[in-house]
Amino acid sequence: MGGTRQGQVAVIFTSRRTRDDDAGYEEAAAAMDALAARQPGYCGIDSARGADGFGITVSYWEDEAAALAWRDHPDHATTRAAGRALWYDDYSVTVCTVARDYRWHRA
Amino acid sequence: MGGTRQGQVAVIFTSRRTRDDDAGYEEAAAAMDALAARQPGYCGIDSARGADGFGITVSYWEDEAAALAWRDHPDHATTRAAGRALWYDDYSVTVCTVARDYRWHRA
Repeated sequence: MGGTRQGQVAVIFTSRRTRDDDAGYEEAAAAMDALAARQPGYCGIDSARGADGFGITVSYWEDEAAALAWRDHPDHATTRAAGRALWYDDYSVTVCTVARDYRWHRA
Repeated sequence: MGGTRQGQVAVIFTSRRTRDDDAGYEEAAAAMDALAARQPGYCGIDSARGADGFGITVSYWEDEAAALAWRDHPDHATTRAAGRALWYDDYSVTVCTVARDYRWHRA
């Protein structure tokens, strides 16, 4: 139950997919997940997307500097441009600081 | 593009569904969304769940007091207990303060 993310920076990315280029999107999304995981200060990522095309990804970072460095990574910027051109009808980015967290799992 | 959530409290709820009681779960989830929307200080909610059963819901609140009041709402507490009994294998709650946000949509 104990929280582990206190003080981390959470970046909440919501997006609505176009119906175009599923294969290209899936490949890019997997590449970005893998690249993010190799960045300094990376603390984890969670993603879900429903059948309606709306998705939420939350990435966690050790501090603000790590989150900004990921935003400014050249490959990430290139993929964002492809996202605007091809994959998304809309998206939002919300940057937060974690105050507290807890977890529950079935015994 | 302008941010609108600065200073709000974001509550990130992740969960993994059991394969049980889809109808009961869907009914309860819709009831909780509707109830949350009627609480003081409610600022919005986003949800996505993939075919693998993993879901993310983010609710936004005007301040910490509003987020805590929603946590402590009796109907919400009852539904959480049902979630632990029936609907979830695990879940996490991460409470954050929004530093900045922005949105993009296709022109």
